[in-house]
Amino acid sequence: MSELKQTLNIAMIGHGFIGKVHSNAFHQVGHFFQTPFQPRLKVVCGRDREKLEAVASQWGWEEIATDWRTVVDRKDIQVVDIAVPNVLHAPIAIAAAAAGKIVLCEKPLAMSLDEAERMAAAVRQVPNLVWFNYRRVPAVAFAKMLLSEGRVGQIFHYRALYLNQSGSNPTKASGWRYQRAVAGSGTTGDLLSHSVDLALDLNGKITELMAMTKTFVPARDVDDAVVVMARFANGSIGSFEASRFAPGSRNRNSFEINGSQGMLRFNLENLNNLEIFDATEPANLQGIRNLLVTGPNHPYAENFWKPGHIIGYEHTFIATLGDFLGALARNETFHPNFEDALAVQRVLDAVQRSADSKSWLTLEG
Amino acid sequence: MSELKQTLNIAMIGHGFIGKVHSNAFHQVGHFFQTPFQPRLKVVCGRDREKLEAVASQWGWEEIATDWRTVVDRKDIQVVDIAVPNVLHAPIAIAAAAAGKIVLCEKPLAMSLDEAERMAAAVRQVPNLVWFNYRRVPAVAFAKMLLSEGRVGQIFHYRALYLNQSGSNPTKASGWRYQRAVAGSGTTGDLLSHSVDLALDLNGKITELMAMTKTFVPARDVDDAVVVMARFANGSIGSFEASRFAPGSRNRNSFEINGSQGMLRFNLENLNNLEIFDATEPANLQGIRNLLVTGPNHPYAENFWKPGHIIGYEHTFIATLGDFLGALARNETFHPNFEDALAVQRVLDAVQRSADSKSWLTLEG
Amino acid sequence: MSELKQTLNIAMIGHGFIGKVHSNAFHQVGHFFQTPFQPRLKVVCGRDREKLEAVASQWGWEEIATDWRTVVDRKDIQVVDIAVPNVLHAPIAIAAAAAGKIVLCEKPLAMSLDEAERMAAAVRQVPNLVWFNYRRVPAVAFAKMLLSEGRVGQIFHYRALYLNQSGSNPTKASGWRYQRAVAGSGTTGDLLSHSVDLALDLNGKITELMAMTKTFVPARDVDDAVVVMARFANGSIGSFEASRFAPGSRNRNSFEINGSQGMLRFNLENLNNLEIFDATEPANLQGIRNLLVTGPNHPYAENFWKPGHIIGYEHTFIATLGDFLGALARNETFHPNFEDALAVQRVLDAVQRSADSKSWLTLEG
Amino acid sequence: MSELKQTLNIAMIGHGFIGKVHSNAFHQVGHFFQTPFQPRLKVVCGRDREKLEAVASQWGWEEIATDWRTVVDRKDIQVVDIAVPNVLHAPIAIAAAAAGKIVLCEKPLAMSLDEAERMAAAVRQVPNLVWFNYRRVPAVAFAKMLLSEGRVGQIFHYRALYLNQSGSNPTKASGWRYQRAVAGSGTTGDLLSHSVDLALDLNGKITELMAMTKTFVPARDVDDAVVVMARFANGSIGSFEASRFAPGSRNRNSFEINGSQGMLRFNLENLNNLEIFDATEPANLQGIRNLLVTGPNHPYAENFWKPGHIIGYEHTFIATLGDFLGALARNETFHPNFEDALAVQRVLDAVQRSADSKSWLTLEG
Repeated sequence: MSELKQTLNIAMIGHGFIGKVHSNAFHQVGHFFQTPFQPRLKVVCGRDREKLEAVASQWGWEEIATDWRTVVDRKDIQVVDIAVPNVLHAPIAIAAAAAGKIVLCEKPLAMSLDEAERMAAAVRQVPNLVWFNYRRVPAVAFAKMLLSEGRVGQIFHYRALYLNQSGSNPTKASGWRYQRAVAGSGTTGDLLSHSVDLALDLNGKITELMAMTKTFVPARDVDDAVVVMARFANGSIGSFEASRFAPGSRNRNSFEINGSQGMLRFNLENLNNLEIFDATEPANLQGIRNLLVTGPNHPYAENFWKPGHIIGYEHTFIATLGDFLGALARNETFHPNFEDALAVQRVLDAVQRSADSKSWLTLEG
Repeated sequence: MSELKQTLNIAMIGHGFIGKVHSNAFHQVGHFFQTPFQPRLKVVCGRDREKLEAVASQWGWEEIATDWRTVVDRKDIQVVDIAVPNVLHAPIAIAAAAAGKIVLCEKPLAMSLDEAERMAAAVRQVPNLVWFNYRRVPAVAFAKMLLSEGRVGQIFHYRALYLNQSGSNPTKASGWRYQRAVAGSGTTGDLLSHSVDLALDLNGKITELMAMTKTFVPARDVDDAVVVMARFANGSIGSFEASRFAPGSRNRNSFEINGSQGMLRFNLENLNNLEIFDATEPANLQGIRNLLVTGPNHPYAENFWKPGHIIGYEHTFIATLGDFLGALARNETFHPNFEDALAVQRVLDAVQRSADSKSWLTLEG
Repeated sequence: MSELKQTLNIAMIGHGFIGKVHSNAFHQVGHFFQTPFQPRLKVVCGRDREKLEAVASQWGWEEIATDWRTVVDRKDIQVVDIAVPNVLHAPIAIAAAAAGKIVLCEKPLAMSLDEAERMAAAVRQVPNLVWFNYRRVPAVAFAKMLLSEGRVGQIFHYRALYLNQSGSNPTKASGWRYQRAVAGSGTTGDLLSHSVDLALDLNGKITELMAMTKTFVPARDVDDAVVVMARFANGSIGSFEASRFAPGSRNRNSFEINGSQGMLRFNLENLNNLEIFDATEPANLQGIRNLLVTGPNHPYAENFWKPGHIIGYEHTFIATLGDFLGALARNETFHPNFEDALAVQRVLDAVQRSADSKSWLTLEG
Repeated sequence: MSELKQTLNIAMIGHGFIGKVHSNAFHQVGHFFQTPFQPRLKVVCGRDREKLEAVASQWGWEEIATDWRTVVDRKDIQVVDIAVPNVLHAPIAIAAAAAGKIVLCEKPLAMSLDEAERMAAAVRQVPNLVWFNYRRVPAVAFAKMLLSEGRVGQIFHYRALYLNQSGSNPTKASGWRYQRAVAGSGTTGDLLSHSVDLALDLNGKITELMAMTKTFVPARDVDDAVVVMARFANGSIGSFEASRFAPGSRNRNSFEINGSQGMLRFNLENLNNLEIFDATEPANLQGIRNLLVTGPNHPYAENFWKPGHIIGYEHTFIATLGDFLGALARNETFHPNFEDALAVQRVLDAVQRSADSKSWLTLEG
């Protein structure tokens, strides 16, 4: 019964955990978003044929392939989705863009600022997206709406944490995310990048920063934790902390914003909730309010279920893709794209240089 | 790349909110569960052709139909899924069972105890399921596991609430759920049924009960709220309260179980969490513990995402269907089925009779 | 530097835990409340001379005594404070009132309704108070203020819990509170009495009720838990549950009130907080708000510390006494007094009779 | 009935909010702690005779005085308690010590590091205390106990916040705490000092730090907010943030400690609670546990009320004084004393110099 939609043939490079999350989004976007496009899971590409076959079978990819260079040049592919370790983001993205494909890429964008700049330049002519999915948490999108309406007043503080406990387990913390040659950095690229993307989106530019990194495991060549203090262009000050050494937190991507008229607070472990404080109410009625951001009149409430029926982690990818396809249909620029991710990379680069030099750094532009 | 699976052609009767939730489960079950069956969304059936076409288009149903009697007799259909107002559950289920179909039915099972008995008898020869989906919330399944291991000790109290605020808005509360002729009852069937199903599953049989109902809106012919006190076969006592007149709650399906060795507490508004209290620990370390039930070693953790990556409302339907297909493959009886739902109906019937007669009632069986 | 105040010589009968709490209130009331009276801790009376001396030494009682009959007749005593097991409330209160003393009495007032009626009659000519101290929790007093202003609208539900875990420890649960001959009842008088007092104060008269009690420990002759369903004169329905068999709760005296315009919720374990929900706000900003009721513009905020500086359990007694002395100075009737406690006793009596007869009971008056 | 105790005549210099809190502690310490000393509220000293008389009347000070120099030399005074703005701490403390008095002083100790060093030297021969009262929150003392037992393992992170909203209200934020000449600093001395004292006590020495301060109000000459990153001698890293510009927080003095075996978390707004996470438990039972630190077997549980009966802000001062008198009776050195406060001042001094110079500073000693 499906109306005529324009098929978008997808090639996904990568087949790990995040590849499953993307596969799900390609399947689900049409169920929750009105879009003239129909993603078709054409080919999944990776190195391990056995795993590829399992993923293809489970998630309905039509073909498997093991050479991404061939795949990105295929005429029948319209979209290249990059879901591989960071070291491969640049070559694939640049090749895919050169082949005229729509490019979707996992975060952090690049191994270095220089690489990120080249990538952003490369994709300038094609629609592109970076999977900073947390912008599309309904509660985060609602926070942005409230900020835009000026409901928090003059911003004083932006305070972000991204804590998990993945790194402190020596038997588990041995994957590519713990190797500089493959990941580029440790916690900085893995976790802090998300916090920085949200900060730039919600609170604007960072003008200067000072950072400290720490590696707790002797042999490890990436940062296990990072702390940043910053000044924003809007006059507020920021503090950031990210760590994979924080037992007690599984996925605590949180921020708190204090302003002259109130406060907003979010924690990914309760992703359907936003806490707000309205300092303009009568003093004896002021209190931190826990909003269940499942509608009515919340972002994405019309797309997913009914008020009181919560969504999960995966929906943030569906919403990202849904908005991307919407922008594509309207021929608009989507955010966050490679330019946005480049801005994040600029901050991450300054973080590493500041930590290395133990000095404040000014960010340009 | 899909291995050969046995196709199950689904006919879904109904196309409202819950029909979308079921549609989603049929699409998603194969992504999260290993199963030899491949549900195929063959036909969606209802009265309103325009809405049917929209649902079919959005959710990928191959055909639409408007006469359920014809549909349930179709030779190419293996599964009939009933997602219509309560008054139609019995005729459709009985006809579908007579036609030898696998029968899936929304809750509450029936308009009356008598009807439920006839339905349970009718489906005895076919695989069947009732969508008491909350048993498959991972946190609830984990609670059951802890109870089964005896970790709560002798149970003293079972305390359940199911509160929302849907009924107190006169402009919205006018659908079929507010009409006795279509729904059979009000809050009792709509909300209390879920609480009773969980109570029977987690805490065993109710031996006697006393109930009070209340209708706040003058012209309404169904109960807006219901309160129940009960005695369980295991010696514990129970209290239940359900209401659609509870501003402050969107979907607060909660229970708390106190036993000689601890406490378990759940609230659907935080469906990824289970609160536990272990009374066997040293006294100064005893405290209510908030578990994020997303793994490791939690029910369904292998099916969905990684620890710390939460799931939403819809996953409880996917897990229900996944387990059903698993039981089907192994030729086992699935729970909750029509028999389980009949047991719930027996309690709901006693609730109504007790409220009407203002007297304690003993439950048999 | 103390201005001239009128001394009130206090005789306290009883020297257990609650006697210390009262002693503290007599010392502290003048520090936090402006009052023309100066309580003087004249004599503490009990059976155990050694314990009496310890209490007197620790809390500054000038004298000890072991015969309450002599004490309540002493000319130099103006106030008799009753802090002994329930069985002694009536004889002491009646004797003290006959001697013209101001009478302060612990809760529950009496062993029976009949006794409560005789006590209330006896004290009619003297200023009197019953220590239902939780009315003076600032958060509770603020809840009452909000209710009085109509901010919750038409009340639908009054839901109260009072749970602790004291009774489930066989080695500890052997004091007078577990003996019918001394306590009159178990959980009903100990815990439910507080819930009933708050309910009557906050939500008005109960017109009919149905109750169930449970004794978990075989040899025990008092109720370990009690559940009540009720109808209030204002059209709302109530549910109450009290238990000393609820591991996970230390002192969970909580209530929740749902009305057409919002919700109020309180839990004694967080006694400085009141949760409110305002259903008149824009739908997307509605959420449960956690108020820290420490000022500004909250009840007793001027008496105790600054906003953000919390108070503890004992302050509810200080505030009760402070208000009592205020009423005394203005020659006004204080609440809760013996009449209020008689109203509570009338409900408790109905609870026991209903539980015994397994039938609904109508309350008069 | 009081046994013979040794009277300690107190002279309190200052009569503001904190003077009342101290007055309360002098009155209450004997009720909750066994001590051979009996504090006697002999004289309260300040500039404003009218306010002095009010405080003396309300809190039972025997005399008032307006010249602190005369007071600290009085032969009948054994204890000088300093509860005045920071600028006066040094002259009074030094004079009192010179007169051989026991010296109790409010925090932060001094206007500068140099001053703090002179003060610490001056009091070396007399018993002394600095009112860093939060060490004696039972939950904080329990955290220290758990840390000492090694239950958190190797410490990775120490994270502290002290946030309130006092400074963002221009009409209120005009007292001495907002003037450098009287307070020495702004948020740093007012709030961060508490966080630093707890950090040093719980996590040991800070070896180097980097700080940023911010003044949001143009004309103001003190810091409104301060952020610090630090390295501790034990290999952990620290982050601190303090602000009087954080609407949403009334008195949020919080810390979180992540270690290889678990997590501890505290927030003064819930001062009776400690949150703990035990990473040594089975993975599926790990969760953040909320302890109600009111006994049994918690610090100060024997001093105050029963389990489940919470204490308030003031009790931290009572416990501080109780422990001080205990140390005095045993002729032991009490902590936190002037030496401890000097260590805090050394950190605060480095914070200011680091913020001014925008550079990392190494702390000696």
